[in-house]
Amino acid sequence: MDRPFVDLGFARVDTDREARQGAPEAIFAEGKSPEEIAGIAEALLAAGASSVLLTRADAPARAALRTVAPDAQEDERARLAWVARGVPEPAGLVAIVSGGTSDGAVVREAQVRAELLGTEVIVHRDAGVAGIHRLEPALEDLRRADCVVVVAGWDAALASVVGGLVAAPVIGVPTSTGYGATFGGVSALLSMLTSCAAGVAVVNIDDGFGAGTIAARIARAAAGATRAGGGGA
Amino acid sequence: MDRPFVDLGFARVDTDREARQGAPEAIFAEGKSPEEIAGIAEALLAAGASSVLLTRADAPARAALRTVAPDAQEDERARLAWVARGVPEPAGLVAIVSGGTSDGAVVREAQVRAELLGTEVIVHRDAGVAGIHRLEPALEDLRRADCVVVVAGWDAALASVVGGLVAAPVIGVPTSTGYGATFGGVSALLSMLTSCAAGVAVVNIDDGFGAGTIAARIARAAAGATRAGGGGA
Amino acid sequence: MDRPFVDLGFARVDTDREARQGAPEAIFAEGKSPEEIAGIAEALLAAGASSVLLTRADAPARAALRTVAPDAQEDERARLAWVARGVPEPAGLVAIVSGGTSDGAVVREAQVRAELLGTEVIVHRDAGVAGIHRLEPALEDLRRADCVVVVAGWDAALASVVGGLVAAPVIGVPTSTGYGATFGGVSALLSMLTSCAAGVAVVNIDDGFGAGTIAARIARAAAGATRAGGGGA
Amino acid sequence: MDRPFVDLGFARVDTDREARQGAPEAIFAEGKSPEEIAGIAEALLAAGASSVLLTRADAPARAALRTVAPDAQEDERARLAWVARGVPEPAGLVAIVSGGTSDGAVVREAQVRAELLGTEVIVHRDAGVAGIHRLEPALEDLRRADCVVVVAGWDAALASVVGGLVAAPVIGVPTSTGYGATFGGVSALLSMLTSCAAGVAVVNIDDGFGAGTIAARIARAAAGATRAGGGGA
Amino acid sequence: MDRPFVDLGFARVDTDREARQGAPEAIFAEGKSPEEIAGIAEALLAAGASSVLLTRADAPARAALRTVAPDAQEDERARLAWVARGVPEPAGLVAIVSGGTSDGAVVREAQVRAELLGTEVIVHRDAGVAGIHRLEPALEDLRRADCVVVVAGWDAALASVVGGLVAAPVIGVPTSTGYGATFGGVSALLSMLTSCAAGVAVVNIDDGFGAGTIAARIARAAAGATRAGGGGA
Amino acid sequence: MDRPFVDLGFARVDTDREARQGAPEAIFAEGKSPEEIAGIAEALLAAGASSVLLTRADAPARAALRTVAPDAQEDERARLAWVARGVPEPAGLVAIVSGGTSDGAVVREAQVRAELLGTEVIVHRDAGVAGIHRLEPALEDLRRADCVVVVAGWDAALASVVGGLVAAPVIGVPTSTGYGATFGGVSALLSMLTSCAAGVAVVNIDDGFGAGTIAARIARAAAGATRAGGGGA
Amino acid sequence: MDRPFVDLGFARVDTDREARQGAPEAIFAEGKSPEEIAGIAEALLAAGASSVLLTRADAPARAALRTVAPDAQEDERARLAWVARGVPEPAGLVAIVSGGTSDGAVVREAQVRAELLGTEVIVHRDAGVAGIHRLEPALEDLRRADCVVVVAGWDAALASVVGGLVAAPVIGVPTSTGYGATFGGVSALLSMLTSCAAGVAVVNIDDGFGAGTIAARIARAAAGATRAGGGGA
Amino acid sequence: MDRPFVDLGFARVDTDREARQGAPEAIFAEGKSPEEIAGIAEALLAAGASSVLLTRADAPARAALRTVAPDAQEDERARLAWVARGVPEPAGLVAIVSGGTSDGAVVREAQVRAELLGTEVIVHRDAGVAGIHRLEPALEDLRRADCVVVVAGWDAALASVVGGLVAAPVIGVPTSTGYGATFGGVSALLSMLTSCAAGVAVVNIDDGFGAGTIAARIARAAAGATRAGGGGA
Repeated sequence: MDRPFVDLGFARVDTDREARQGAPEAIFAEGKSPEEIAGIAEALLAAGASSVLLTRADAPARAALRTVAPDAQEDERARLAWVARGVPEPAGLVAIVSGGTSDGAVVREAQVRAELLGTEVIVHRDAGVAGIHRLEPALEDLRRADCVVVVAGWDAALASVVGGLVAAPVIGVPTSTGYGATFGGVSALLSMLTSCAAGVAVVNIDDGFGAGTIAARIARAAAGATRAGGGGA
Repeated sequence: MDRPFVDLGFARVDTDREARQGAPEAIFAEGKSPEEIAGIAEALLAAGASSVLLTRADAPARAALRTVAPDAQEDERARLAWVARGVPEPAGLVAIVSGGTSDGAVVREAQVRAELLGTEVIVHRDAGVAGIHRLEPALEDLRRADCVVVVAGWDAALASVVGGLVAAPVIGVPTSTGYGATFGGVSALLSMLTSCAAGVAVVNIDDGFGAGTIAARIARAAAGATRAGGGGA
Repeated sequence: MDRPFVDLGFARVDTDREARQGAPEAIFAEGKSPEEIAGIAEALLAAGASSVLLTRADAPARAALRTVAPDAQEDERARLAWVARGVPEPAGLVAIVSGGTSDGAVVREAQVRAELLGTEVIVHRDAGVAGIHRLEPALEDLRRADCVVVVAGWDAALASVVGGLVAAPVIGVPTSTGYGATFGGVSALLSMLTSCAAGVAVVNIDDGFGAGTIAARIARAAAGATRAGGGGA
Repeated sequence: MDRPFVDLGFARVDTDREARQGAPEAIFAEGKSPEEIAGIAEALLAAGASSVLLTRADAPARAALRTVAPDAQEDERARLAWVARGVPEPAGLVAIVSGGTSDGAVVREAQVRAELLGTEVIVHRDAGVAGIHRLEPALEDLRRADCVVVVAGWDAALASVVGGLVAAPVIGVPTSTGYGATFGGVSALLSMLTSCAAGVAVVNIDDGFGAGTIAARIARAAAGATRAGGGGA
Repeated sequence: MDRPFVDLGFARVDTDREARQGAPEAIFAEGKSPEEIAGIAEALLAAGASSVLLTRADAPARAALRTVAPDAQEDERARLAWVARGVPEPAGLVAIVSGGTSDGAVVREAQVRAELLGTEVIVHRDAGVAGIHRLEPALEDLRRADCVVVVAGWDAALASVVGGLVAAPVIGVPTSTGYGATFGGVSALLSMLTSCAAGVAVVNIDDGFGAGTIAARIARAAAGATRAGGGGA
Repeated sequence: MDRPFVDLGFARVDTDREARQGAPEAIFAEGKSPEEIAGIAEALLAAGASSVLLTRADAPARAALRTVAPDAQEDERARLAWVARGVPEPAGLVAIVSGGTSDGAVVREAQVRAELLGTEVIVHRDAGVAGIHRLEPALEDLRRADCVVVVAGWDAALASVVGGLVAAPVIGVPTSTGYGATFGGVSALLSMLTSCAAGVAVVNIDDGFGAGTIAARIARAAAGATRAGGGGA
Repeated sequence: MDRPFVDLGFARVDTDREARQGAPEAIFAEGKSPEEIAGIAEALLAAGASSVLLTRADAPARAALRTVAPDAQEDERARLAWVARGVPEPAGLVAIVSGGTSDGAVVREAQVRAELLGTEVIVHRDAGVAGIHRLEPALEDLRRADCVVVVAGWDAALASVVGGLVAAPVIGVPTSTGYGATFGGVSALLSMLTSCAAGVAVVNIDDGFGAGTIAARIARAAAGATRAGGGGA
Repeated sequence: MDRPFVDLGFARVDTDREARQGAPEAIFAEGKSPEEIAGIAEALLAAGASSVLLTRADAPARAALRTVAPDAQEDERARLAWVARGVPEPAGLVAIVSGGTSDGAVVREAQVRAELLGTEVIVHRDAGVAGIHRLEPALEDLRRADCVVVVAGWDAALASVVGGLVAAPVIGVPTSTGYGATFGGVSALLSMLTSCAAGVAVVNIDDGFGAGTIAARIARAAAGATRAGGGGA
C-alpha cells in the first residue's frame, strides 16, 4: 500500500488514483468549503490529473474551481464544473438513453464523466416507454454501443425494455424525478434492481457520475484500449 | 342504512351487497375456521347469492365449502374454491396479461372473479418486457378489451408498456413473484403506482380478486350492462 | 411501432398519443426549463392536440405556456395551466368526493384533467368519515356516477366507506395532507390499497392527473362514447 | 423505589404491580421455557395476584400454567391461558367492535384481559365498513360504553368511522389480518394513528392485551371504581 | 345519519360534532387559505361552538381567525390560535409530563385542547429519564391525575417509565424532536407503541391535539362529568 | 418486433433471446410446476439453446430438468441445475471474490452462469475486510481480470475496498448473509449502492445469475469476442 | 499486510486475528456446512487459538465442533458451542442487565464471549423499566462495572435509564423479543440509537457476540490488562 | 433518587449529572429559544459545571451562550459553542478517523466533546477506503489509541476496515454525507451496525457528541483515571 497521496490536513488527495484505476479522483462539492474545493483541485492538477470533475456544485463551489483553473467549464443545471487537460483519446462508444426530459441533469453528469475518461458518448433523451415507438430511432445506436446507460425516474420501466433488446452491458441510473410514491428515486431504484431483463446493473439514485465511470471503463476495454493499474500492490 | 345482513355471531354476512353493488360478498379464508367458512357460505347461498368465492383457501377451507355446496369448484394452486349458481350473462371483455409463468395463481384469481361477476375474460400469459416481441400477438386482444388487467412481479415494467399502448382503462396487479429487492411485491407495487403511462390504477399485491372485481365493473358498464345499486340510501 | 413523434432534442413529443389512446400527452413541469415547456406545448398544439395540460407548474412554468398559447387558463393553488382547443363533447359522469378542504388542489387537478378528456365532473368536498353524515347528500351523485374518484389524506378511510356503498368503479387518490405518521401520503396510500371494500383501485399520492385520466376513460366508455386506439400496431 | 418483587434468577417477578397499578403482571410466553412460565405464575399466585394471564402461549406453555394452577382456563385459537382467583367486581362497560371474523383472536385477548381486570365487556364482531349498515345495531352499545375498543386489520377504516360517532374514548388495535400491502398490520396501524377522527389512541399491532388493560382502566374510572396506586413513591 | 352540518362549498362544517361527541370540530390550518379558515371558524361560532381551535397555523392563518373572532388568543411557537366562548366547567385532572424542553410546542397544544374541552391540566416539563431523579417531584401529580399524557421525542423511554409507575391511563405523544435515527419521530412512536408497560396508548407524532382530546374525555368521565352523545343515530 | 418465440400457453419461450442478446433465457423455478419447467426447458433445447440454466430450484424442479435432459448437471446447495450443450469458447476473465464462506451459494450461481456464457472464471472465497490481509493473495487475479464480481453480505465493505484497488469494472452482489440489521441483504445492498469507490454497479440481492450475465458480457467484449445482436429491430 | 492466514479453499482462516486484536476469529454457523465448520475450527485450534466460539449453531453445527474438539461445551437455547483452551486471566468487570426473561439467549451469548476473552461477567436478568424498582438491587454492580451491557427488546427503554445512572461506558444490544411494531428488533434498535442518555453505543440486533467483544476490550483496558496489537502493519 | 436538579419551569437542569456520571449535561439547541438556552447554561455554570457544550446551534443560539458566558468559544460550521472552565486533566488517547472531508463537522463535534471531558484527541481526516493506502500513515495512531472513533458517510466501509486492524474498542459514527440511497445516513448506519469486524459499536447518525462522550469514558478508564459515580443511589 505504498502509493502516493497529498495530505492537505482537511483532505488526503488520492493523486495515485488515475495511475491505479485509470480515472482521476473527482470532488463531491457538498459539505466542502470553497477553500477546500480549490485546495483539492489544485493538488490534483499539480499532480498531473488528466481532468478534474466537481459534482453537486453550487455557484460558489464552481467559482472556487475557476480560481485555480481558469480553463474550467461548467453546467449550471447539472451542478457540474470540470477541467479537461489531458483527456485520453476517445475509445469505445457509450450510449445514454433517458426516460424523460426532466432527467436531463443526470444524463449530463454521466456524459461529462464518460467523455473525460476518454469515450465517445451519444445521447437519446426522452424515450420513455409510455410512448415506446419513440425508442425505435435510438435502437441502432443502442445496439452498436459498447455500453448502454439508461437514466430514468418514475417506474424506470425503460431499463427492462432496453435490457431486453440489446446485447451490450446495461447500467441503470435511477433518478429522483417524480413525486409521491417515487420516494425520491426509490421506486426507480427498486425497479431497476429487479429488472426482469438479465444483464442490468445499477448505480445510486441520480448518480450520473458513477454510471459514467463504469460505462467508460466497459466501453474502453471493449474497444481494446489499454487499461490502467498494471502495477503491483 | 336500513339494509339487510345475517348475524351469525362470529360474522355479519352482508347479504345486501349484491343488490347494492352488483357483486356478492366473497370469503377471505385466512383466520377463519372451516366451520365459520361453511356458515358464511351457507348464509350467502341461502340469501340467493349468484356466486360464492373463497380466496386464500387451503385444503380444509375448500373442503368446508364443499360440505355446504357440493357443486363447488376449486383451483388448488390459486387456493380458490367457488360456487356459481346464477352468474349474470357475460357482458364486456376483460383482457388479462401477465409478466411471467410464475404469476399464474394471481391471474387465475382475477379471471375467476371477473367471470363470476358476468364478464368474458381472455388471458395472455408470460408476455414480460424482457422479450417484448412476445407482447405483439396479444396487442389486438388488449386493444379490443374494455378493461386490461396487467399482472406482474419483479419490476412490473409491463404495466407501463401496456399502459402506453392501449386506450382502455388499465388495472395493475403487482405480484410477490421474485426475491431480494422485490420485497414481496413492493417493487412491483411502487413501479405500477408511479407508471409513466397515465391511466393505470393499481390494487393490492397479489390481489387478483380486487382486480377482477373492478375490471368486471368497468367492462360490464362499457358493454352497456345495467348496474346494481339503483336504490336509495 | 411506426407511429409519429416530434423530436426536439431535449424531448420526443408523443404527438401520436391522442390518436392511440384518446388522451393527449401532458407536461410534467418539474425539472423542465420554461423554454422546454414552451417547446413541448408548441409541438403538441401544432400537432392538433385537443388540449394541453401542464401539471406541478410554478409561476414561470405557467407563464411559459401562455407565451405559446395566450388562451391558456390556470389555477395557481393547484399549480396547473391548460389550453383547451378541441375538448370532446362530454360523455359520462365522474363524481369526485374528497375527505377534507385541504385536499382541494388534488381534487382540482383530477377535475380539470377529466373535463379536458371530455367528461362531466361533479365535486363533493370535505365529506370525511369523522362526520360521516356529511356524506349523505353526496350519495345520490355518487350512485349515479359512472366512476367515483375518492381523494383523501390522513387515513383515507373515506375510500372504504364509499367503496362499500356504490356499484361504480372507485379510483382512490391518496393525498399528502397531514403530518407525522401520514408520512407524506403513505398512510393514505396503504389504506386505500388494502381497502376492505372490493373494487377500489389506486393511483399515486397526490396524482389527480392520473385519476382524472382513468376516470374519464371509464366514464366515457360507460356512456357509450367511441374509444381511440382502433388502429393496429 | 422500595417496593417488593420476587427474584427467581431468570426473572424478577413484579409482585407489587397490582398494588401499584391495579393490574397484575402478565406473562408473555414467547422466548420462555415451560419451567420459567410455571415459576413466574407460581410466584404471582403465591403473592396473591387476582389473576394470571399468559399470552402468545402455545400448547406446552399453556400446559405449564395448568401444572401450577389446575383451575386455569384457556383459549387455543387466541393462544391464551389464565387463572382467575380474585377478579374485582365488574365496574364500567367496555365495548369491543371488530372489522372482520378473522380478527377473532385479538378480540378475545382484549376481552379476557379487560374482564380479568374487573370490567363488563360486550363484543360486536365483523362490523367492517365495507358494509357499513352492519354497524347500525352496534351503535347503541358503542354509545353507552365507557370505552370503545376497535379491532381491525386491512385499512382499519372502522376506527375513524366509530371515532366519529361516539363520545367515549376509543382505543384502536390494528391487526395483522390481510396480505400484501397490509405489511403485517402496518397499514392498519398507520391508518389508526392518522385517523381523521380526534380522540382515538392506538396500541401495538395485535395487542389485545394492551387494549384490554387501558380500556379497563378507563371504564372502571368512569364508573367510579377506586383506583390502585394511592401510595407514595 | 340525519344530523346537521353547514355546507360552504369548500367545506362541510360538522356543526353537530359537539352535540354528538362533546368536542367541537377543530381546524387544521395547513392546506387551507385564510379565507377558508375564516369561513369555517365563522360557521362554527355561529352554530354555538364552545370553542374553536386552529392548529398548525402560521401567522396569516392566525390572523384570519382574529378577523372573525377578535377575542381569539394565540401561541406563536405552538402555531395555535383559539377562541374560548363557552368552555365547560373543568372536571377531572390531566397531567402532562414531557421528556425535554424542546417538546414544548406539543405540550402546549395538548394543554390548550384539554382545557378547552373542560379539564384541569397540570404540566411537568423536561423530566426525561437521562436524569430520572427529575421525575420524582412530578410523581405525586402523576399519581393523582385521571389521565397522564407523556410527550417525548428521541427514544421516548419516559413513556415506559411513567407507564410502570401510575395506575391511570397513559396517552403517549411521540414528538419529532431529535435528528438522525429519530426519523422525524418514528423512533419515539415505535418505542411508545411497544412500551414494556401495559396500559399505554399512543397518538400520532406531534399530535398534541389528539392527546388533549382523548385525555380530556377520559378525565372528565373519571370525574363523573356528563358525556355528550346521548342521542340516537 | 417480428422475432420468434414458442407459445406453450403457460409460457411464451423467448427462443430468440440468444440470437438477440448472446445469452439464452434462463428458468426461474419458483412458482413454476415441474411440468412447466420441463416444458420450457424442452422448448429452449429444441430451439438450439447453447445452455439452459435453472435457478432457485428445489429437488423436484431439478429432477424435472433431468427428465428432458439426462445430461443435466446440478448443485444442490446453490439450488441450480443446468444443461451445457454448445457453450461458446471461453473469452475474457471474470474474477469473483466473496466476503465469507456463507456466501458460497451465490458465488456458485454467478460462476456457473458466467461459464455457460463463455468466460473463464476464477474464484477467491472469504476475503472479507475484517482481516484485510487475506485479500492480498487475490489482488493479482483481481487486477488482471476483465470484470470483478464482489459477493458480500453483512456490510459488504469489501465492494468499496476492491472498488478502490482495481481498474476493471466491478459488479457488486449483495447477499442475504447475516441477521438483525442486515435486513435480508438490504444493508449490503445500500452499502454497495453508495460505495465510496466509483465504478461499482450493483445487482439484486443474492442475484448471482444477474451478476454472471453482465460480467460475462463485459469480459467477453474486453477480450474481443464477437457480440450477438448485430441484426436490426 | 503481510500477516498469516490459513487457506482452506472455502475459507481463509484469519489465524492472525488474536495476535492482532486480542480476540480470536469466531465462527458464524449459518450458511456453513458441518464439514466447513469443523475445518475452520480445526485450523483455528491448530494455530493456537485461546478459544473457539461457534454462534447461531443448530445441533449438527454444534456436533461438528465436537468432532474436532471433544472438550467443546454448548448452550442449546443460545445456539452456542465453544472450546476454551487458553482463556486469559480475567481482568475487568462487565455487568450485563436485561429487560426480560425472554432475552436470555442473547444475554448468554454476550456472557460467554466476554468470559472467553478474559473478563469477569456478572448478570442481572429481567430488570425492565415496567417495574423500575427491580433495577435497584442491580445498581451497585452496574456502578462498579468497567462496562455495562444492556440487553433489551420491545422499546428497550432500559438502555436510557441505565445510561443515565452509571458512569461507565454502556453498550446496548437490542433484541428481537416482541411482536407487531417491534419489527424484529427495529424498535429496540432505534430506541437505543436515539437514547436520551449520552454515552450509549449500540451493536446489531441480537448481537450478544459483538457486545461481548467490545465490552471485554473496554473492561480489560480499564483494569490495566495489556492489549494485543502492539506490532506494526 | 434524592439527587439535585434546578427547576427553571421550562427545564429541569440536571446539575447532578457530572457528579453522577463524570460528564456535565449538554444543551441540544434545536427547539429551544435563546432565552431558554441562556437560562440552562447559566444554571449549569452556577452549579459548577466543568464545561457547557451547546450542539446543533445556529447563530442566535450561540449568541445566547455568549450572553451568559463571554468566554464561550464556537465553531460555526459544526454548529457548536462551548464554555470550558474546569476541564479535567487529559487522560487517555482518542483517535478519530474520518472517511471524507465532508464529514468535518461531525468530527469536530466528537473532538470538542471528548476534549471537554478530559481526553487527548488526535484526528485523521479523509482516509476513506476508496484509496485505502491513505489509511497507512494513520495506523500507528489508531493502534496506540485507547479508543478509536470512525466517522463516515456513504457506505461507511471504513468502520470495518479499521475494526479489523486495531485492538482498541471502535465507536462508529455514521454521517448523513451523500445523496440518493444514502438516505440521510441510513446506509452508513446499517453498514456500521452489521460490520463484519467484531468490536464495533455505533451511535446515532451525525452524533459526534455521543461518540465523544463514550470514547472519552473508555479512554480515561484505560488510562487509569478515576471515574465519577462512586456514590450510592
